[in-house]
Amino acid sequence: MEALDVTRFVLTALGIVAFAISGGLMARKHDMDAVGIIALAVVTATGGGMIRDVLIGALPVAALVELWMIALAIGAGLAVLLFVPEDRKFRKPLLIFDAIGLGLFVVDGTLKGLIFGLHPFAAVGAGVLTAVGGGVIRDVLAQEVPIIFRRASELYVVPALLGGFMVIGVSAMGWGNTITYLAIAVVTLGFRILAIKYRWHLPGARYSPEHGRG
Amino acid sequence: MEALDVTRFVLTALGIVAFAISGGLMARKHDMDAVGIIALAVVTATGGGMIRDVLIGALPVAALVELWMIALAIGAGLAVLLFVPEDRKFRKPLLIFDAIGLGLFVVDGTLKGLIFGLHPFAAVGAGVLTAVGGGVIRDVLAQEVPIIFRRASELYVVPALLGGFMVIGVSAMGWGNTITYLAIAVVTLGFRILAIKYRWHLPGARYSPEHGRG
Amino acid sequence: MEALDVTRFVLTALGIVAFAISGGLMARKHDMDAVGIIALAVVTATGGGMIRDVLIGALPVAALVELWMIALAIGAGLAVLLFVPEDRKFRKPLLIFDAIGLGLFVVDGTLKGLIFGLHPFAAVGAGVLTAVGGGVIRDVLAQEVPIIFRRASELYVVPALLGGFMVIGVSAMGWGNTITYLAIAVVTLGFRILAIKYRWHLPGARYSPEHGRG
Repeated sequence: MEALDVTRFVLTALGIVAFAISGGLMARKHDMDAVGIIALAVVTATGGGMIRDVLIGALPVAALVELWMIALAIGAGLAVLLFVPEDRKFRKPLLIFDAIGLGLFVVDGTLKGLIFGLHPFAAVGAGVLTAVGGGVIRDVLAQEVPIIFRRASELYVVPALLGGFMVIGVSAMGWGNTITYLAIAVVTLGFRILAIKYRWHLPGARYSPEHGRG
Repeated sequence: MEALDVTRFVLTALGIVAFAISGGLMARKHDMDAVGIIALAVVTATGGGMIRDVLIGALPVAALVELWMIALAIGAGLAVLLFVPEDRKFRKPLLIFDAIGLGLFVVDGTLKGLIFGLHPFAAVGAGVLTAVGGGVIRDVLAQEVPIIFRRASELYVVPALLGGFMVIGVSAMGWGNTITYLAIAVVTLGFRILAIKYRWHLPGARYSPEHGRG
Repeated sequence: MEALDVTRFVLTALGIVAFAISGGLMARKHDMDAVGIIALAVVTATGGGMIRDVLIGALPVAALVELWMIALAIGAGLAVLLFVPEDRKFRKPLLIFDAIGLGLFVVDGTLKGLIFGLHPFAAVGAGVLTAVGGGVIRDVLAQEVPIIFRRASELYVVPALLGGFMVIGVSAMGWGNTITYLAIAVVTLGFRILAIKYRWHLPGARYSPEHGRG
């Protein structure tokens, strides 16, 4: 169980940094000021976990108890503020950091669901909500259509679902440890990044104008 | 109490199907891909109940415990994906399925509030939140103004409130059973559908451009 | 403790009226009908407190137990409906009522966090969420960018954070009473109103087009 705590700490910390950067980049893209950048970084980094904790009843939510989470998100937001120049679009980097957070958080969220005693399928649901929730909040607050709902966006929920099911499979087999869980996160985020790079879509999905003609 | 369980099961199941279809139609309207259609169907169908469960403290939320709810919503989303052609607008069908869900969920939500020991007026509040919540999430995620907040949309909250008050009245009278509660749901959704068909507005509301001149 | 109850009652009641008016004005601005005005008034007035209660686990949320809160918000919404003429923009009054609610709710929310046993910094977080949450929901539902995320909007989170830290400071000193807490609320909302009036921005923030050239 202690090993699981270490695993979850690593997944959570890296995921917070990745999602906080994606939130900060989104704020930069929309020319928000310093407070907007940091606020959107914090909300994006902690929003998915808050949704998960609220829906499963793990209250108060982790981010209001483990204050290092918010401190870390503020730090990542400050880094965007200091090191990322204005007046750029950041579409690709934003998607990459979102993908990294997606892979890390789906593993972390599914594990928390299992620890909390949910049915394994419900644990996958909690994991997917953790993974996509922060990004949905980020996009709604910036008045963009959430990635998950964009017309013909590259595979997004599919890698997350796959990651969640790998976690419950590995856990059921008794193979769960820091290495296997981190490996699942890497496979998941790698799958998503390859989907962006090679424009993998569901069969039948049409290219949206912003993707050009493939 | 067992009869009440049957009643609530029927209300919940039919309401999930209706709202899932409305979510799927909204996703089709915005040219989302297969995953977007199913995701928006699930979120619309379960969102109102999740908001209710979170606010009253019935945690974990029902949809993460009763997994058939999500399975049913996925099934309804798949039906939209398979049987509803692309490139159409679906304004009327979307509103009709939303109306059916509204009537069913306001009864179900008010009953859950009463069972949970809320003051009857608070139970009506929980019922109205259940009935309108999923649709508000659906519309926000698709970047439309929620029906409830559209300029001069036809009567929407009024039927829901009426349904909720009928439930607490019938319950207080000791007349509550499967037949009476289903009848209230039918009256409520019928009221809403008539309001759409005959363009009933609040006194003083002006027609919006999309409604033409009545 | 009884004195604290009185303090929180005053802060909550005044804050609900202020935020309900801001919600009603936003609905008027977007030509919503009577139900839309009252619904947006209620959601804006109670939304921040609901978010706070959900995240800290104070369930059922206060607004579903203390029904006078919703009654008061409906009353304030009705006042907007009756006394505020249509066809105006209300940018300044909306910001002023939002500022009043911001100052009152950050003190109230921070106090509730402390009472609930949160770490003082987490209590400030709960206070800021209470203060900004209702306004964010109001703006998202009306399809505007939330004030807090608008490009170069005047100082908004800074006064809220300052108010929260003053509350935990005064509380730690043992100086907390109705007078000091109300004074902090007045200082906070006064700071925010001065920021609007004199266009105080963070260093480096650029003026947005709607603000003109200062």
